[in-house]
Amino acid sequence: MKQRLHFQVLQRDPAGAARRGRLQLPHGVVQTPVFMPVGTAGTVKACDPQELQQLGYGLILGNTYHLMLRPGEQVVAAHGGLHRFMGWPGNILTDSGGYQVFSLAARRRVDDRGVEFRSHIDGSLHLLTPERAVAIQQALGVDIMMALDICPPHDAGAGEHEQACRRTTDWAERCLRARRDSAGALFGIVQGGLDLQRRRRHLEEIAALDFEGLALGGLSVGEGPEKMEEVVAALGPAMDAGRPRYLMGVGLPQDIVRAVGHGLDMFDCVVPTRNARNGQLFTWQGPLQIRHAAHREDTRPVDENCRCPACSRFSRSYLRHLYLANEILGVRLNTMHNLYFYAELMRRIRAAIERGEYSRWARDVLPGLEGRQSGQEKV
Amino acid sequence: MKQRLHFQVLQRDPAGAARRGRLQLPHGVVQTPVFMPVGTAGTVKACDPQELQQLGYGLILGNTYHLMLRPGEQVVAAHGGLHRFMGWPGNILTDSGGYQVFSLAARRRVDDRGVEFRSHIDGSLHLLTPERAVAIQQALGVDIMMALDICPPHDAGAGEHEQACRRTTDWAERCLRARRDSAGALFGIVQGGLDLQRRRRHLEEIAALDFEGLALGGLSVGEGPEKMEEVVAALGPAMDAGRPRYLMGVGLPQDIVRAVGHGLDMFDCVVPTRNARNGQLFTWQGPLQIRHAAHREDTRPVDENCRCPACSRFSRSYLRHLYLANEILGVRLNTMHNLYFYAELMRRIRAAIERGEYSRWARDVLPGLEGRQSGQEKV
Repeated sequence: MKQRLHFQVLQRDPAGAARRGRLQLPHGVVQTPVFMPVGTAGTVKACDPQELQQLGYGLILGNTYHLMLRPGEQVVAAHGGLHRFMGWPGNILTDSGGYQVFSLAARRRVDDRGVEFRSHIDGSLHLLTPERAVAIQQALGVDIMMALDICPPHDAGAGEHEQACRRTTDWAERCLRARRDSAGALFGIVQGGLDLQRRRRHLEEIAALDFEGLALGGLSVGEGPEKMEEVVAALGPAMDAGRPRYLMGVGLPQDIVRAVGHGLDMFDCVVPTRNARNGQLFTWQGPLQIRHAAHREDTRPVDENCRCPACSRFSRSYLRHLYLANEILGVRLNTMHNLYFYAELMRRIRAAIERGEYSRWARDVLPGLEGRQSGQEKV
Repeated sequence: MKQRLHFQVLQRDPAGAARRGRLQLPHGVVQTPVFMPVGTAGTVKACDPQELQQLGYGLILGNTYHLMLRPGEQVVAAHGGLHRFMGWPGNILTDSGGYQVFSLAARRRVDDRGVEFRSHIDGSLHLLTPERAVAIQQALGVDIMMALDICPPHDAGAGEHEQACRRTTDWAERCLRARRDSAGALFGIVQGGLDLQRRRRHLEEIAALDFEGLALGGLSVGEGPEKMEEVVAALGPAMDAGRPRYLMGVGLPQDIVRAVGHGLDMFDCVVPTRNARNGQLFTWQGPLQIRHAAHREDTRPVDENCRCPACSRFSRSYLRHLYLANEILGVRLNTMHNLYFYAELMRRIRAAIERGEYSRWARDVLPGLEGRQSGQEKV
């Protein structure tokens, strides 16, 4: 069986759980902690894959739910996999489709077999089982696959959470059995809602299985940053230290900085790309709304110290104009800025761990990131 | 007074009126015949200015009407002009705003002073006079300005066309008088509708003035390609040979090939960029609609021989998927393909003139461009 993934912890923060790692994957080495831009439908929205490389990304996320419905995994497979289909030479992780089935699809019905749902695009009926989730991800040919899980609303009752955990463990085992020898790495997902005891119990079940990585699911789904951090703080350091730890769907820069402090290694979120489309630009002094009238004749860049393709060539005034005129170039430049910011955030996070002063560094940057130090707008 | 423009005809087609020229402008030399991508609101839609340079463009068009309304010429001037505002190091030609006032603005009222209109954006009232059209273009700091003209519908009555010619000549003189010594080149516009005698008379009036270039306006406004060519064929060779000849708002590849044969040097049109957004891709075998189901699993590029950023890295299947999923990257790649095609079209046009065989070359490529040779869709 091929070596699907090699993960090595290079350094640990002396004052906390943060760690600096190296993740070897079929399409190159990834330095952790790492942020993965989200490429929902076979493209990180508004980006050319060459731009993602230039920004320093080597691992992006694709959505199984979207790709199975459009264009269909067989179209992607006809190209020799998702890498070739979308012209991306780096690594790809796909989610299992479960999360989107629960958040987007209409009329879903879950039983022990899997989840039946209707496409949000054309209403067609689909059955996603653990075996099918793995088969689709294998057809996509990705580097890291995620096991099919059940993600209940954070405020679901104890019974629903217990059942979700039970099924998620059962499906996790079925996913591992369904995987071909030649396929990519497979990560298991820990559920359990906000109850720490249930979370810990489920972590034990999932960690006992032969996954190459472990993920926390069911967070950043409306529970709020404090409750999320409670779970991450309790679970992160308890996750197997020898495998990469992935916090799914998180998050804002401050969420990532905190989660790294609790020992998490991998992150993904639509925030940098989606908020870019809405004109929200991240800075170390908090986010900035480019549409505001204050920027009308401001010939300065968004951030004087930022070296992204937007800040090095264009003014706030121009970006505001593009936003108001609904120009695609505005979306492009805003997306470049935010993805550059996230890449730089992860570089600084890694450097702080390397210097052995992560906790102090995090304490210093958090007020700025949350816009608590300046006149800039809060998220 | 500074040398605003230096135009030199390098070569003439022995069998026709086509000519190969060199246009020296403040932001670099432009080889003619030349096509100018349209940057309506301070951006060629979906393009980064660096991409336009990489495609080989050195002269683009901006719309005075759009820029005066949003962001307003004073915002552009605060950046030191349109080049710096939009990060474009090449040359810029702006239209006078007249055409858009007549096609977009609400409740316009023309008299000898100028044209009063309401903005299509916010309904605000504006007066565009010849003097103001020049002042705005000077504030934008462009390399080539256009005189304010009146562009009646092609099927307007003789009286309306006569009055439009009379006012356009009067305004042309006022534009020349209003221009500062330090400002860019100024081109005059010939009107007159489809009546060749009226067109020739108006050409004489405009050519008698001290413009650095001459343009044919009021074409490609619904009169159809045959009637348009009649006017271009009659007027092109009659235009002053020592000055660049600009056919405004034209056009499809076949329109350009024919107009070059009648001695025209400069062209602009939204077709490559607008049609790209609608999924229409130009090829030497006629246009292709990327949304068609035939492309669903087609792993070939749009054109096997095309070296554009889309064809060199992505399949028809992927471009179709991006189109159906309404992804910005699809618009970007389609736009790159079409602008590459237009740049390549102009390179081949220039090369054919240089070889002294333009007429034969044009006869050979026209059936393909018009989709009359293959199974591909007609425009």
